[in-house]
Amino acid sequence: MSDLLNEDEIKTLIKKVPEWELEGKELVRVAEFDEFMEGIDFVDGVAEIAEEANHHPDIDIRYATVTLRVTTHEVNGLTDADFDLAGRIDNLLD
Amino acid sequence: MSDLLNEDEIKTLIKKVPEWELEGKELVRVAEFDEFMEGIDFVDGVAEIAEEANHHPDIDIRYATVTLRVTTHEVNGLTDADFDLAGRIDNLLD
Repeated sequence: MSDLLNEDEIKTLIKKVPEWELEGKELVRVAEFDEFMEGIDFVDGVAEIAEEANHHPDIDIRYATVTLRVTTHEVNGLTDADFDLAGRIDNLLD
Repeated sequence: MSDLLNEDEIKTLIKKVPEWELEGKELVRVAEFDEFMEGIDFVDGVAEIAEEANHHPDIDIRYATVTLRVTTHEVNGLTDADFDLAGRIDNLLD
């Protein structure tokens, strides 16, 4: 299991995933698509990555807007695993 | 577009979809699975139905728990389209 990151580590890592916002102990990314099914395709891609990493974001679908929230519940905060997952999800959207 | 249903109509229709809770102006169903990917498969099935009906529920995924919220935003309440969608989604889980 990854270790809890401290504030300085988080400040450094967040710069590598600029599409994500830090909200409390979570990384949050809102992805907006033109159509509902594009959002669903994105969720399917996220799911595949999440399952592979055994690290699963919270996913909210509001028509064509998908919000992802990533944290490590086991340590009640952010770890390398969260930033790794965020980076891999970003690759889906590049 | 479907017409807004009155309270009596809603009371009758909700009996046909007993897995759904009435929460304010929404129908809500929480579907719990054993594994994350089962929930994702369910969401894919819901998406197909929703796209066909051109009526899209809010979908929240929390690991293997999927929460659906159905309402008709255009009339700010529940319509036949909501109960039709709920019933069709239930067929996925029977």
